[in-house]
Amino acid sequence: MIKVAVNGYGTIGKRVADAVAAQPDMEIVGVSKTRPNAEAFVAQERGYPLYIADIKKKPAFEAGGIAVAGQIEEMLKQADVVVDATPGGVGAKNRPMYEKLGVKAVFQGGEKHEVAGFSFNAHCNYAGAVGRQFVRVVSCNTTGLCRLINMMDREYGVSKVWATMVRRGADPGDVKKGPVDAVVLNPVTIPSHHGPDLQTVLPHIEIVTFAMIVPTTFMHMHVMHIRLRSAPVRERIIELIRAHPRMGLVRSSTGITSTAELKEFAMDLGRQRSDIWENCIFEESVAVDGDDFYCFQAIHQEADVVVENVDAIRAMAGAVRDPEESIRITNEALGFIPI
Amino acid sequence: MIKVAVNGYGTIGKRVADAVAAQPDMEIVGVSKTRPNAEAFVAQERGYPLYIADIKKKPAFEAGGIAVAGQIEEMLKQADVVVDATPGGVGAKNRPMYEKLGVKAVFQGGEKHEVAGFSFNAHCNYAGAVGRQFVRVVSCNTTGLCRLINMMDREYGVSKVWATMVRRGADPGDVKKGPVDAVVLNPVTIPSHHGPDLQTVLPHIEIVTFAMIVPTTFMHMHVMHIRLRSAPVRERIIELIRAHPRMGLVRSSTGITSTAELKEFAMDLGRQRSDIWENCIFEESVAVDGDDFYCFQAIHQEADVVVENVDAIRAMAGAVRDPEESIRITNEALGFIPI
Amino acid sequence: MIKVAVNGYGTIGKRVADAVAAQPDMEIVGVSKTRPNAEAFVAQERGYPLYIADIKKKPAFEAGGIAVAGQIEEMLKQADVVVDATPGGVGAKNRPMYEKLGVKAVFQGGEKHEVAGFSFNAHCNYAGAVGRQFVRVVSCNTTGLCRLINMMDREYGVSKVWATMVRRGADPGDVKKGPVDAVVLNPVTIPSHHGPDLQTVLPHIEIVTFAMIVPTTFMHMHVMHIRLRSAPVRERIIELIRAHPRMGLVRSSTGITSTAELKEFAMDLGRQRSDIWENCIFEESVAVDGDDFYCFQAIHQEADVVVENVDAIRAMAGAVRDPEESIRITNEALGFIPI
Amino acid sequence: MIKVAVNGYGTIGKRVADAVAAQPDMEIVGVSKTRPNAEAFVAQERGYPLYIADIKKKPAFEAGGIAVAGQIEEMLKQADVVVDATPGGVGAKNRPMYEKLGVKAVFQGGEKHEVAGFSFNAHCNYAGAVGRQFVRVVSCNTTGLCRLINMMDREYGVSKVWATMVRRGADPGDVKKGPVDAVVLNPVTIPSHHGPDLQTVLPHIEIVTFAMIVPTTFMHMHVMHIRLRSAPVRERIIELIRAHPRMGLVRSSTGITSTAELKEFAMDLGRQRSDIWENCIFEESVAVDGDDFYCFQAIHQEADVVVENVDAIRAMAGAVRDPEESIRITNEALGFIPI
Repeated sequence: MIKVAVNGYGTIGKRVADAVAAQPDMEIVGVSKTRPNAEAFVAQERGYPLYIADIKKKPAFEAGGIAVAGQIEEMLKQADVVVDATPGGVGAKNRPMYEKLGVKAVFQGGEKHEVAGFSFNAHCNYAGAVGRQFVRVVSCNTTGLCRLINMMDREYGVSKVWATMVRRGADPGDVKKGPVDAVVLNPVTIPSHHGPDLQTVLPHIEIVTFAMIVPTTFMHMHVMHIRLRSAPVRERIIELIRAHPRMGLVRSSTGITSTAELKEFAMDLGRQRSDIWENCIFEESVAVDGDDFYCFQAIHQEADVVVENVDAIRAMAGAVRDPEESIRITNEALGFIPI
Repeated sequence: MIKVAVNGYGTIGKRVADAVAAQPDMEIVGVSKTRPNAEAFVAQERGYPLYIADIKKKPAFEAGGIAVAGQIEEMLKQADVVVDATPGGVGAKNRPMYEKLGVKAVFQGGEKHEVAGFSFNAHCNYAGAVGRQFVRVVSCNTTGLCRLINMMDREYGVSKVWATMVRRGADPGDVKKGPVDAVVLNPVTIPSHHGPDLQTVLPHIEIVTFAMIVPTTFMHMHVMHIRLRSAPVRERIIELIRAHPRMGLVRSSTGITSTAELKEFAMDLGRQRSDIWENCIFEESVAVDGDDFYCFQAIHQEADVVVENVDAIRAMAGAVRDPEESIRITNEALGFIPI
Repeated sequence: MIKVAVNGYGTIGKRVADAVAAQPDMEIVGVSKTRPNAEAFVAQERGYPLYIADIKKKPAFEAGGIAVAGQIEEMLKQADVVVDATPGGVGAKNRPMYEKLGVKAVFQGGEKHEVAGFSFNAHCNYAGAVGRQFVRVVSCNTTGLCRLINMMDREYGVSKVWATMVRRGADPGDVKKGPVDAVVLNPVTIPSHHGPDLQTVLPHIEIVTFAMIVPTTFMHMHVMHIRLRSAPVRERIIELIRAHPRMGLVRSSTGITSTAELKEFAMDLGRQRSDIWENCIFEESVAVDGDDFYCFQAIHQEADVVVENVDAIRAMAGAVRDPEESIRITNEALGFIPI
Repeated sequence: MIKVAVNGYGTIGKRVADAVAAQPDMEIVGVSKTRPNAEAFVAQERGYPLYIADIKKKPAFEAGGIAVAGQIEEMLKQADVVVDATPGGVGAKNRPMYEKLGVKAVFQGGEKHEVAGFSFNAHCNYAGAVGRQFVRVVSCNTTGLCRLINMMDREYGVSKVWATMVRRGADPGDVKKGPVDAVVLNPVTIPSHHGPDLQTVLPHIEIVTFAMIVPTTFMHMHVMHIRLRSAPVRERIIELIRAHPRMGLVRSSTGITSTAELKEFAMDLGRQRSDIWENCIFEESVAVDGDDFYCFQAIHQEADVVVENVDAIRAMAGAVRDPEESIRITNEALGFIPI
């Protein structure tokens, strides 16, 4: 059993903890919180030992009915791998602690590539993570891009990519961030930083990205335009999507044409937290035009990286060397019901 | 086993079907759809026989990969009770069919009181529904009002109620309705129609209601002001809420102060569809001031009536005569984890 | 003086009426309404004679304090040109009336090309509208595309265009339409219908368009990717935008990176109704990459077609034959303050 | 001429500057900005001399094409009265500077009562501000409450008030703040702080307030419940509202039932920035029930305090001693067109 700690039990951390706990070859040794809020109750309800950074806050947790198992360092000492799911930039500050304690660490896409020195996507470069001490799982948007572009590159060879990302303004449980009624260019410059981020995983891909933020809470919508080295065939692409373990084809017969209806469908299917770990590619949008391939894909910003974290753990622990095998185990444990 | 059909497998119907299927003394004999969309897939995934109104549409369903069990009348003939969860006003048109086939029917709050002749809330008037052919479960807002006002009335006697309802604009899966950026007075007149609707269940309560719509997708927020016949005590009210099987106390230690955080909490607790069947009363808002009681309560518009439908079925079938017993069975079957 | 009637005094019609009234060579002979609402008050406040389709509704208008000048036919008889700003599809039904009365008519983009037989944009094909009886001003999105693509085509020659349109869900005063919290693919198919619509004005342009709807109320955001026949130069494009009478360059020094800030700026500048008649091109987004040109442009859906309607009137009346001259007169009359 | 400086040319400051500039007895000697953004361009466009706090930033402004007149202290030395429209809490830090320079100062509702020692509303306590050095204009919500409660108190005597405030999440030009899809109780405690704030102006009024935030950008909506000392008459209240110079009656014949439609109407009427300086009381909502009075009133958060600032300046300068006279001058200068 790989012993896993989750440092930062928030939007990503709580999902990673549940996904890890569901794996046959992993167990959670602890999770951490900085404040005794609703998520701390949830950790306790799940039976995850709860650790805190500042032991002086222990009475505040206990006053809220939350038992504290100890300080974060104690949690880390029990772990083979820690998943650092702290807010962007905090992971870099935590790295020296992980180095000192000799614990392997998975960082998130909010950290720079240099913090880990290796940026990961299970389908693209699993082998490179095997045995590594530090690995960074790229952000939700980059993960979604990696999967699709890599699939098309293997089949047809990718000549160039143009991707527009229409991003959600705030996560569903975040009531502070906006916008309320605006499209915000973020960044206003073209290209955005997402292209270079993709190249940390797939350095040979030429890509131009465009990004904006809109007042929604779930899923980013990608407009994909991929120029290939040979003319693609629509039916073949549909086949590839259907066969891909981290892609879902949103069939036209469902009548689903929006992020909200997609969420409703995941919820109805009984997915935990209505999470959608796959790229959701709208069947009706799949189009080819000479060497060009187009589609819309929706990416659940809270979920797609969760399964990548699980695979990264498995690779780093050296437990499974075949990416397809790890992906299969991860997916089966979560009970993927096809979208 | 009480045999239950669900006519209209949409936002409410699909939830009622799952809640019924989870009961130890009930089973689903069929559900109905008018179009072969995502929800039809879900019904099939759940194993509910799917019936349609217009048998000529059978090929369209089958083309979408959905098996059709037959016409709605065939479904009704197998049922002891049908839950009519069709859009508002359609239930009235369906009533003659139910009468002709001699099937008991539960209507929803979108129908007028007269369609059933009896408006229901499990805590208020369960006994009156025992053995009845037609019962109407009042709307989500009225259900939320009934529970709280009835509880306070039994303890202190209610002199008068003022309630403001800040309503969600559209359900999460509905992408057509707005508003996008407005507060809409609905109705602009004072009082709104919600007071008289409450009186279909609790005729002796004097109540003035105010209603508006805002651009959110989950939960209505009620501002409650209840004048009592004797001065209330805050601690006692907290006790009553904690003891009430259809109320949840949103504890201040959770840090939750919004509908979005509440939804996130229900989701994290593993509730099916993140549903919140209880009135959610914010602990910090509970206040007394002489004979006046104030609080904020959030009402999940898709969920609170679901459990009432289950109790209505049990009462109508004559299976359980004690409301507390029915409520206990219903709740246990759904695995209420306390909010 | 060109005598102009406006049939349909709503979002577009009221703006066209004010723009026409501001022109030195035009006057409003009447506007029409179907209901005595706030906009009818505004028409009266402005001094526009108000006509109605159904004279039996006259008492209802008068009860609301609105004077009625007569029936729509009487208005049309006084007009040289009628601007049909009725809801999409109604214009087609009105055309026989205009034919019968021999009045020239401008239709909007909600009508099919065939209703007028000629689709108009002042910069692209003004000459073709001179003296015509029926002209269709293309939709707000198509107008925005026409201006930019035509400008680039004249300078560099356009090889192919890819345009993504992120559209507002509802107009600011429309509280019925959504979505509240979703990205809606509209249409879900690729390409969308916007490309063929552009080709009604610029038939030689090869274009692929992608479209979606988001929960905002003002401005569409276009992600533009134009492949040119010769390599563009960024500084030259900035010059062209600055010199274009229907384009505004959103300077980086303003700090504006969103539709909301742009609206605020137009409001602060004292624009009537905060209207932005120009394509708003974000300076920092203007980028060239070999033969490719990229930029973000925001299009005010209520305003950009207004000035095109004015030019169409002038062309149809045969009053001015030079498009630059008409555009200059139109803009000056509205007091364009540079964005 | 009263010489007025505006320290903080933002949402409120820019409106106060324009309102002051429109008065026959006042002039703007300068406005201040901290950054050379779009609003700085607007100030320059308007011809207001622009001053900055940190003179080292002068080159940054000039690089953006904005001329700088000098440092804030130089502006203050020329002023009889400064309107401090800096963000909440900054006014308190600025007070010593105003004291040192002996300039009278108007603070906004984001400051505590103690910063000025006198909280102002033109209808309630104009006389108390005459000749004062420091005055605080209460917040937009409190201003709206003051006007209505004071009017009812003078006519009938107010026994107690219950007011629910459904507040906009962010100003139209603010793209950072949310929420996107939530009702946020703010504060979650009952009563909110708005009652005590009203009592800084009307100390004898007993009031309980409830407050929440919703995802909209313009206008707060108040649900008013006022218990009077004698039974009110609906027609008389309508008369009082019509006669009140800072109240607008939203007539039922306009069909307006939302904040968005109200904004559209103000925009169509040609109001500068579509500003609504009055309390907007919905005619159809005005209701009486024994000693109770109910109504909905919408309050434009960016505008209602602007006219109060102008009156405060006139009182402090000792120029006009009669509140009705000052209110009349202020309103006339702005060209109030009745809502």
